[in-house]
Amino acid sequence: MTAPLFAIGLGTGTRGARGNWLEVFYPAPLRNVDAALAAALATHCGYAGGNAALEPSAQQLAALATALGAAGHEAQAAIAGQLAGGRGAPVITVLATDAAPASVPEAYLKLHLLSHRLCRPHEQKLDGLFAVLPNVAWTSEGAIEVAELPARQLAARVAGRTLTVHGVDKFPRMSDYVVPAGVRIADAARVRLGAWLGEGTTIMHEGFVNFNAGTEGPGMIEGRISAGVFVGAGSDLGGGCSTMGTLSGGNKALIAVGRECLIGANAGTGISLGDRCTIEAGLYVTAGSRVTVIDEAGAVVKVVAARDLSGGSDMLFRRNSQSGAIECLSNRAAIALNEALHAHN
Amino acid sequence: MTAPLFAIGLGTGTRGARGNWLEVFYPAPLRNVDAALAAALATHCGYAGGNAALEPSAQQLAALATALGAAGHEAQAAIAGQLAGGRGAPVITVLATDAAPASVPEAYLKLHLLSHRLCRPHEQKLDGLFAVLPNVAWTSEGAIEVAELPARQLAARVAGRTLTVHGVDKFPRMSDYVVPAGVRIADAARVRLGAWLGEGTTIMHEGFVNFNAGTEGPGMIEGRISAGVFVGAGSDLGGGCSTMGTLSGGNKALIAVGRECLIGANAGTGISLGDRCTIEAGLYVTAGSRVTVIDEAGAVVKVVAARDLSGGSDMLFRRNSQSGAIECLSNRAAIALNEALHAHN
Amino acid sequence: MTAPLFAIGLGTGTRGARGNWLEVFYPAPLRNVDAALAAALATHCGYAGGNAALEPSAQQLAALATALGAAGHEAQAAIAGQLAGGRGAPVITVLATDAAPASVPEAYLKLHLLSHRLCRPHEQKLDGLFAVLPNVAWTSEGAIEVAELPARQLAARVAGRTLTVHGVDKFPRMSDYVVPAGVRIADAARVRLGAWLGEGTTIMHEGFVNFNAGTEGPGMIEGRISAGVFVGAGSDLGGGCSTMGTLSGGNKALIAVGRECLIGANAGTGISLGDRCTIEAGLYVTAGSRVTVIDEAGAVVKVVAARDLSGGSDMLFRRNSQSGAIECLSNRAAIALNEALHAHN
Repeated sequence: MTAPLFAIGLGTGTRGARGNWLEVFYPAPLRNVDAALAAALATHCGYAGGNAALEPSAQQLAALATALGAAGHEAQAAIAGQLAGGRGAPVITVLATDAAPASVPEAYLKLHLLSHRLCRPHEQKLDGLFAVLPNVAWTSEGAIEVAELPARQLAARVAGRTLTVHGVDKFPRMSDYVVPAGVRIADAARVRLGAWLGEGTTIMHEGFVNFNAGTEGPGMIEGRISAGVFVGAGSDLGGGCSTMGTLSGGNKALIAVGRECLIGANAGTGISLGDRCTIEAGLYVTAGSRVTVIDEAGAVVKVVAARDLSGGSDMLFRRNSQSGAIECLSNRAAIALNEALHAHN
Repeated sequence: MTAPLFAIGLGTGTRGARGNWLEVFYPAPLRNVDAALAAALATHCGYAGGNAALEPSAQQLAALATALGAAGHEAQAAIAGQLAGGRGAPVITVLATDAAPASVPEAYLKLHLLSHRLCRPHEQKLDGLFAVLPNVAWTSEGAIEVAELPARQLAARVAGRTLTVHGVDKFPRMSDYVVPAGVRIADAARVRLGAWLGEGTTIMHEGFVNFNAGTEGPGMIEGRISAGVFVGAGSDLGGGCSTMGTLSGGNKALIAVGRECLIGANAGTGISLGDRCTIEAGLYVTAGSRVTVIDEAGAVVKVVAARDLSGGSDMLFRRNSQSGAIECLSNRAAIALNEALHAHN
Repeated sequence: MTAPLFAIGLGTGTRGARGNWLEVFYPAPLRNVDAALAAALATHCGYAGGNAALEPSAQQLAALATALGAAGHEAQAAIAGQLAGGRGAPVITVLATDAAPASVPEAYLKLHLLSHRLCRPHEQKLDGLFAVLPNVAWTSEGAIEVAELPARQLAARVAGRTLTVHGVDKFPRMSDYVVPAGVRIADAARVRLGAWLGEGTTIMHEGFVNFNAGTEGPGMIEGRISAGVFVGAGSDLGGGCSTMGTLSGGNKALIAVGRECLIGANAGTGISLGDRCTIEAGLYVTAGSRVTVIDEAGAVVKVVAARDLSGGSDMLFRRNSQSGAIECLSNRAAIALNEALHAHN
């Protein structure tokens, strides 16, 4: 086992009544793991190569903690030690290679790699993710299998406890697993585990970030970043704006937003934007929108489908408020970030 | 008592300091209840006919549990037994007929009938519902009367407890009462008790469903379904889109959305849509919008107010991106549901 | 000390590991505080004038409670008494004058003055607020310093507790600090501490209110009120609508909305509206939008930038659905509030 392993996670999770995994929490996942750590897992936890989710006993975890500490992996040793003595269902997931996730522990490790910023969006195979992830009730008493929820709700009531159900979904909130450094998330319900948020990112209450999507940062995000969409450094998304995704009939091509763009409030884009682009508040530019391209003298250059402009930089899109035509101009006005605001992101 | 009763609920609720009901949880409400169950309620809990909210003692509940078990109503017997031994304030609400809700227990039973999918929207009388429902603080310590909240907040602080107030409203979250089968709700704050969600429905974070409204399912809902609005099978609502309601000055006529429609992100409709309609992202079609109807040859057929098209099928609405005119075309393009996504709803 | 003090708050808060304040809860802040109360603070808690955050001992609080009771300040005496015997970190913040907030306790007192409706938006100096407020993880176990969160999350897991992170932000939810009388807030995540909500205000799930912003009430608010924006009595904001703020590149000038306005669903404004204005659903009026002003006879009066109409009353904005031009008409149609709805706000 001399080649580095793609990723490892020491974690603890929740199972349903049939022993099936519902979710797994990895406090400190690792990417590109050296051979020594892999060898320790083989010796103490029965790791035999490949991609696997091991279910170590308390004794195995204690032995692993000692071995990891001796090998200089202090942080991982501490985690193993705590898992050895704690409640919950411990699991150690090893991904020797980046393959499509084959189990809940594997899927959760991949989502953690994204949210811990160890892998960027589109760097991992996520094929079949939806089929692997179970639908889970996310509650004030942890993850509960949806089929068990009615009995748990009645039991809480008769016991005088308050059981709050925050959501019922295949994805939990990222903030319940990790909050990466230098980030603000006003309403944690709106950022899924699997989102990649770079330093200096603020997700306001109207903002939303799906899995395998995110922001380079810094940026003030008050709009919705669909699965697969990545927003470059210094770009701001105004309240309620939309980046069209591919999951629900809207768009065929995956889009991205470059650096220093400004998408206005209640606006939207179905095409990629390069750098320093602006979309006027309230305007939705779809891939098929016919756009009148205007030069700096104000003359019409051409009329094209917006998809033909996809990925361009220095574009300003507006809807002419007298003619109703969607126009694209050269975006000479610098996008002036509110420096005071970004300084305290 | 030979005619079936409209509905019954065995439940447990919360009262304010003056003994007034704040809310009631019914684990398994019933519709069209047979005479035997009604007779058991008369015998053991003093039910004397009509619509009533009974407040049985523990002994009465225990006797009722035995009687229900003997009569073959195992599930209801189990509930009665748990309520007999538990905390909280038990209540049995009987609606002999479907009349306007006259009390909090009656109102909550009617909202449960909707969310348990026992009654569809518009099948019950809900007159005066807002006047009956109290405004309640929904917290991590359960329902609290708004007037008592300041004292409870200070008491929690000095005791070292964390009291979180999720909302202050006449309606609680549906998920804290029931999660019907085959449904996903990404942010449970956005689905009110009283919503009707059919199998295969996914309410994404930007989606919203009011009481007495809902979706046949399957459907990917990322927009807002106003009170009274129902969305047919196979329809998807894009992020931030709007179905205009009648509660707040916007619309006079109640609208509905048929099957296999697609309302684009940040779009909206103030008219009903039949089947297989599409509204382009960013376009709001109001009842009064003047719409240019265009035939398949591209010729203008007529210009009408959108309300004259209300309920039509196979309509595609767009705003001509060169002329600014709202146009309605025949919607030949099939709405291709993302099959992988809907397969795992 | 004969001049009244600007404000006082007896409170209890949370500190991080280094003793730094994360947040402070003031159950009953006071504005324009008479000399007797100030003298009691000097005598018992070492208050020496100016703006200060005192950290009284339990004994000092007990003595203060007695003194306040003797002086007729029953409510404040009760609070002092509870703080004396309770957990948490007590703090008494005195603002002799309204100056830029110099500490977390001072900043929180100012935000409380807004949310308790003791100061309206724009009545206080809030310079440097963002620099003073720390970024905090708001959780089911209270406020946690972001740097301590990973250890707390792992500790909760191994102990079998569920730790939910509601948000990571400089501002907490208003509802966890105060719910002013006569208000409904459907999703409390969407109203920040520092919002000013007048009686009769309902903030629906899609509504949002930032700090130093708010509503006179009554009003049905389903759209977003940006920092600094105030909405007059009887105005309704439709679902998803936007009032453009100044914090993120959108607008230069602060705007306000007057009385009895209706901003349609998914609409938006970048200009101030006087009274009885309407913006059609889906239309975003930016400051630079060219608007065709039309008189009651239907004739074009002028074409101006929308900013030239800022603050006007009785204006109806629509986008002509045949020509695509943004038009402004005289708003003769009364805005009929849904009386049943507002009666039960």
